[in-house]
Parts: sequence; structure tokens; C-alpha cells
Amino acid sequence: MKNIETYIENNKDRFVSELFSLLKIPSVSADSTFSDKVKDCAQAVCQQLQAIGVDEAQVYSTPGHPIVFGQKMIDPKLPTLLVYGHYDVQPADPLELWDTDPFEPTIKITDIHPDGAIFARGSADDKGQFFMHIKAFEAMEKTGELPCNFKFLIEGEEEVGSIHLEEFIKSHKEMLSNDLIVISDTEMIAQDQPTICTGLRGLSYLEVEVTGPDLDLHSGVYGGAVPNPINILSKMIASLHQSDGKVSVKGFYDGVLEESTQSRAQLNAVPFSLEEFKNSIGIADIVGEEGYTTIERTGIRPTLDVNGIWGGYTGEGAKTVIPSKAFAKISMRLVPGQDPDKITQKFVEHFQSIAPPSVKVKCTPHHGGWPYVLPEDHFGYRAAKIALKEGFGKEALPLRGGGSIPIVALFEKVFLTKTVLLGFGLNSDVIHSPNENFGLRNFFKGIQTLPIFYRVFSELKMGKM
Amino acid sequence: MKNIETYIENNKDRFVSELFSLLKIPSVSADSTFSDKVKDCAQAVCQQLQAIGVDEAQVYSTPGHPIVFGQKMIDPKLPTLLVYGHYDVQPADPLELWDTDPFEPTIKITDIHPDGAIFARGSADDKGQFFMHIKAFEAMEKTGELPCNFKFLIEGEEEVGSIHLEEFIKSHKEMLSNDLIVISDTEMIAQDQPTICTGLRGLSYLEVEVTGPDLDLHSGVYGGAVPNPINILSKMIASLHQSDGKVSVKGFYDGVLEESTQSRAQLNAVPFSLEEFKNSIGIADIVGEEGYTTIERTGIRPTLDVNGIWGGYTGEGAKTVIPSKAFAKISMRLVPGQDPDKITQKFVEHFQSIAPPSVKVKCTPHHGGWPYVLPEDHFGYRAAKIALKEGFGKEALPLRGGGSIPIVALFEKVFLTKTVLLGFGLNSDVIHSPNENFGLRNFFKGIQTLPIFYRVFSELKMGKM
Repeated sequence: MKNIETYIENNKDRFVSELFSLLKIPSVSADSTFSDKVKDCAQAVCQQLQAIGVDEAQVYSTPGHPIVFGQKMIDPKLPTLLVYGHYDVQPADPLELWDTDPFEPTIKITDIHPDGAIFARGSADDKGQFFMHIKAFEAMEKTGELPCNFKFLIEGEEEVGSIHLEEFIKSHKEMLSNDLIVISDTEMIAQDQPTICTGLRGLSYLEVEVTGPDLDLHSGVYGGAVPNPINILSKMIASLHQSDGKVSVKGFYDGVLEESTQSRAQLNAVPFSLEEFKNSIGIADIVGEEGYTTIERTGIRPTLDVNGIWGGYTGEGAKTVIPSKAFAKISMRLVPGQDPDKITQKFVEHFQSIAPPSVKVKCTPHHGGWPYVLPEDHFGYRAAKIALKEGFGKEALPLRGGGSIPIVALFEKVFLTKTVLLGFGLNSDVIHSPNENFGLRNFFKGIQTLPIFYRVFSELKMGKM
Repeated sequence: MKNIETYIENNKDRFVSELFSLLKIPSVSADSTFSDKVKDCAQAVCQQLQAIGVDEAQVYSTPGHPIVFGQKMIDPKLPTLLVYGHYDVQPADPLELWDTDPFEPTIKITDIHPDGAIFARGSADDKGQFFMHIKAFEAMEKTGELPCNFKFLIEGEEEVGSIHLEEFIKSHKEMLSNDLIVISDTEMIAQDQPTICTGLRGLSYLEVEVTGPDLDLHSGVYGGAVPNPINILSKMIASLHQSDGKVSVKGFYDGVLEESTQSRAQLNAVPFSLEEFKNSIGIADIVGEEGYTTIERTGIRPTLDVNGIWGGYTGEGAKTVIPSKAFAKISMRLVPGQDPDKITQKFVEHFQSIAPPSVKVKCTPHHGGWPYVLPEDHFGYRAAKIALKEGFGKEALPLRGGGSIPIVALFEKVFLTKTVLLGFGLNSDVIHSPNENFGLRNFFKGIQTLPIFYRVFSELKMGKM
């Protein structure tokens, strides 16, 4: 690997400059005013693939945002690795909380990143991370042999639920067939602590609307005598959790696979400081389901959160109104054993059942996603473990992720293959928040380590290890 | 009074046209972009007063919106009546729910108003109502003798808490001295059912802010392990009411004067149809404090309502965030025995005490107001009762109003005189809501009846009745 390290060292400025050119394109998938920019970004990604020799790379249109696909087939006898990533990004708002322009990538030295970090929307989620694979491929190809066939699938709708991906992969099943999928869109437990994400939570997401009177009313004339949808929605939301922190939706925990004592012990062996955790986000106390640690609460337990709430007068000053309607966006994170469509259905039934007769309730489901687990005896997990040990000089730790990447379960259903979640980000990257950033150290460590993973994957699959 | 009726009949089109010219001015006190229009409206009101012979009428500047004052002193031996009104109006939003332009007064025939109603913001609250006094004065003056001295005090900040009025009336105490104050800004129980509002609820209003993490967080990575301020605010709001409908703020009911059985019976004798009430606002069920009727719940009982709530992601689609902050605007309506500043203080202490240690809570009080009662043996009440019987051919009914007019208690404190709340509006005027309107029948009935009230007031005060 010395050649690869030398190659990377000699080309690192260009690597960063190429990543910058992708980061500068505001590929915000959730906001239709950025549609053209999203298309531009797809083209830019395609060009990057072509530049490293993936000459069959192409941009595919969908009814939504484009999908980029390219492959380098070395030898049909070699195993095939599919690299998945997404070039779309979260909206950057609230803009006023960014210290630098979210689409003008800026390198800053920080306490966590004394070697510098790239501050930009998408630097960690996901452009910086998928781009490591493109540069790892380039470094390997230029200095030796590629150990396996490669397929790159980089889509543009991950942040909005990958709504057109299912149709695409089903209608291009042969083209995308693979032995393993790898995704870099997750985080390490700590800097220089290699981590394999062995699970992802599923997702169920709804918008609810509670209607009281059929028009806004004067709260003096009517206050105390009519249903106030804000007060009632608050009561309904409050009732969604029991005092022990469990979600009270009827049937929510049915079928939830309890983790074994050994598995839980392993998860909790991961280094974690509660004080640091609390300080990092400025809270005086944590909350959650009784009987579970913080790591367990976010990794192996299903949860419910209200992501947005609004109703009535929210402007400057005072207005004494009883509004006609109140609204909330509610999501649930799911674990193996839970079916997102069934959970959504259970939520709707439960929510309707707890509504008092004085109001009308409407529930509108949004996109969801299945939970996912990678067993530790799977060759993909083993390849990651070996490669990370070699790359970092340290044992990799397994971690059950709190977030959802719904297409992972979809991939398993369509291709019958597993996905290895091999990310090099950090919690301090604050993805989805203002001042998202990705460490240069992490970026280059990934580019150095991934070739090892490619090689070990190939050898394990071929039975040579 | 025949002459007065004839005068009104001969001039009614001009009366409506003059009112229209006031309604066309968007005197929105809450929104600083309308400041100039508010000033214009003050000038227009002043001109209307001068036109009826109140030649000392003047516009007084304040640090906020102007106050209009004028007087007609006939004879120092006669009693003095102060007419209070406000020329400022509520914001018209949401604009899309208006059927006509809120500031283009339009007469429409409706089921409730077969003779027509004026649709415009401010038509009932309060321009149409205070303007009845100006026209009643004109009619009386042109056809006979004015029976008392008149003072007109028309301010421009009622909808935003009359913040500069206290200073003005205290520094012009002599100029404003009076024997009785009359305000037309309330409603009759039903069309052609004369009503004397014998009480007003007080008001306490706050904005609350709950902070969890010090930045927005990814709800997958953190969900289930950290305090979500929306969920927590919902729980806190839900706890503000007990299951019997009582407000659970500690000390809230201390000192509340319970109404006598006789008083309650009289209130409940007022014609009221629960079915019509529910149908008029499209609710399937009413809610409120156990043991009290709808009329009592809005008239003689203190209550709490959330007027606005917001936090997290409220835009299009889905965003999986745990927001840093959640907010609400909360108001309480008060009854005699409750001190608005003390109630605000009790709320703040209670709200802080129910906040879990995992969040920070901030409470910001807004303007409040004292509750008010007019005893039935007061000469002002008796004058209203006699005048309304003569004007409508029907006994007037007393009604304890749900809304607040905070300056009424202020007037009593400064002038040591009582206020008679003599309104000619209807519930269907939907003040503060879109499509506010005021019946022409009501407008003219008021102009016809007020001269009787002026006369009876004077005679009662002089001991001639």
C-alpha cells in the first residue's frame, strides 16, 4: 500500500479541489428552486467518474432528480462491489447560523480537527464521504490492480426519501447486480476509532392536523368553552410517551427483536462519556426509555419525536386567538422486527383513537424506511473489520446507528446482498445542522483505507482468506 | 324622539358613507408598516368630531399611535359623559380567507342581516360602534338639546394593549374628568335582544420558550436520548389543565369571587342554544370547566388558552430534526378577585417549576388587564336598562363578557367612575376573524337608542328620575 499512500500524498491538493467543485453546487433536493443545480451536480459527479476511468458512467433521468451510474468490469470471475452514495444535500437553513457560506467550502482549523476540516453543506453528508471511494479507486487503479469489479450508484434524492430509486434499481437489476454494497454515510465513534455501522433504524414519518372550530375565534369571547386545537394537540402529543419513556402507540413494540445481553454489552463497551455528550449539545440532563443507556436508546430501541409543530398566531406581539387548526410533523425510528407501513398504520389508528370527540384529526403519511442489520459473521463485516484494523492499527468497533438510510433494506430485497456501512465521519460533523464539516484527516484516512477494504473483500469472497 | 328618528332616516346614506371613509383606512396598530395609515385615521376621526360641532377636537401625539380627544361642554351643572372608542383595528390576516377586501367596505345581504351588513375589518370592532355615538350626538344636537356634557376619547392602540393611554389619561386627568364612561365595543346576545355587558374578564399574556440542545440535531442520531423541546413543551402545556377542566397553575383560583346562585341563574336565563352554538363554529362537542355552563365558562370563570405554538421544521415535506427550541404564546382570562400581574407571576413560577431539568425555560410577559364588574344598582346600569327598554321595546339582559378591555379598570382607578358597556354588535360579527361585519340594522338601532341613554343618564345623575 505504500504506493497508494504516496499517490494520495502527491495528489491530495487536487483531491480536495475536486471535492470543492462538487461542494460548490447547491444540490438541495428538497427545494424545487434548486432543481437545475441538482442536475448540474449529477453531471459533475458523472465527469468525476469518467475521469478515473469509469468510462461507462452515465446520468440517468428519473421523474425526479437524476441518478448517476458507472461501472468498471475487470473480470467476470472477480466479485463485484457496488458503491452507493448520494450527491444531493439537506437544505442549509437557517442560513444566519452558518459562520461561512454553506456552498463556499472553507477549510478551518478547529480543536477537533487541528489538520483542518472542510466546512460546507454536504462535506460529510454525503459528498466528502462518497468521493473518498472515487479517489480510492483512482489511487488503486493508478498504482496497481483493481481487485474487484466496481459499480458506482450515486443518486440525488436520498434526503427526500429516494422516491425514484426503487423503480430504477428494479428496472436495472441486472446492470446493478453485485456481491456486496458499501456505503460511506455514517460516523466513527471518535476520531481515529474505526467503526462499522452494523445497523440502521427504520423510519415512519407523518404530518398530523387537528381541527377545532371551523374558523379562528376570539379567545376572550370563546376561551374556556370551546376545543382549542393547540391545547388538544399538545395533550395528544404528551400522551405519546409513558412516564418510563416508552412510546405509548398501541402495538408499537410488537415484534421488536430484543438484543442479546452479549450484544448489548458489546455496544456499551464502546467509549462514551455522558458528560461530554451532554456538554457537546448543551443539555443539563438526558432523557429516554428507562433501562437503556444512551447508546442503546439511539441504536437498538424504537423512538418517537415531534420534528415540527405550529398553529395559531406566531408573529410579533400578542394576538388573542383560538385557532381553527394545529399541526405537527411526527417521526418514529424503528428497529428490526418493525414494519414501517404497519407502524404508520398503528400510529394513525392510535392517534385517531386518542382524539377527543370535539376535534377532527387528519394524518398524512410521508416516506418511510425499513430497519437494517449486518450480522457480524457476514463476509462484508469481516472484510471491514480486517481492513480497518490494517488501516488504523486499531480494532474496529461495531455500532448500531440511530439514523435511517431506507434504501439499504431495499437493496437487500432486490439484490439479495448485504450492505456494509463504512463511514469516516464524526458526530461533530453536525450533518443536517448549520456549519456541517468533514475533517481532512478523515477524508484522507478513508481514501487510504478503502483500497485495503476492496482487496480484503475480494479475497474473502473468492475464498482466498 | 320622533325628530331624531326622522333626522337619522334623512341622513342615513351619509352616515354610512362617512363610516366607510373611516373603514377604508387600514389603521392596523400591531403592524408598524401601517403607522402612517393609523395617523391618517386619527386625523379623519378628529375631522368627524369637528363636523358634528365638537370643535375643540384635537389629535394628541404619543410615543406610539395618536389619541383623539374632543369635548362639548354645554353647562357645568350638567353631568359629563365620556365616550371611549378605538379607531385602530386588528390585522386582517389571513387575507386569503376574506371574501371581500378587508379595507374596501362592502354591504352584503346575509341570512342574519337581511337588511345588509357592512363587511370590513373594524366595521364592528370598533369603528362602526364608536361612530354610532358620533352620529347620535349629531342627531340629538341638530334636533333638540344635548342633555349632558360630552367628552370623546378615541385612541389608536386598543388592539395592542393601549400602552400609552395610561400616561395620557393620568396627565390629562382634569381634562378627561367625567361622571360616567360609555363604551360600545361588545355584543348583544342575539339580534334585537338588547344587552348590557356587566363585566369583562381580565387578561394575562406571555410568550414562553423551551430550549433543549443548544443547536438543531439529527433526529436519527439523537432521537430517543435527548430532550426534545417540542415534546416537552407539549407535556407542559398538557399539564396546564386538570381532567375536570380547571387550570392547574398553582394559586390560580386564589381570591376568585364566586358568583351567587341568583347571579348565575340570571346569567343562564339568557337565551342560548348549545346546538346552534356548536353548529355556528363547526364543532362536534364543547369542552370546559366541569360544573359550569358555556355562558359561565366564558363569562365568570378564569381560563387559559394557548394562542400560538411553533418549533422545529414546519415547511413543505419532511425534515428529521430535533429542534433546539419550541415556543408558545399563552393567555389567561381573569375574573374579579384576580390581579393580572400576580397571575402572570404565578404562571411563570408554575411553568418554571414543571419544566424538567433537561431544558431551559424563558417566560416573557406581554400586556395584561384587570377584570371589571358593573353592579346592577349603579345609575349607569339603570340608565342603560331604561334606555334600551325604550329603544327596543324589550327588557335588556345583563351579560358577563368573555373578552377583555383592560383600560376599563384603569379608568375606574384614575377617574373613580364606572363604565357602561353598551354594545350593539353580534357574535356573528366575528371580530378578530376574517369577514368581520356589522349589521346596518344594528348600526341604526344604536344611533336611535343612544340619545335615549344620554337623556336618561343625565336625568338619573341629576336626581330627576
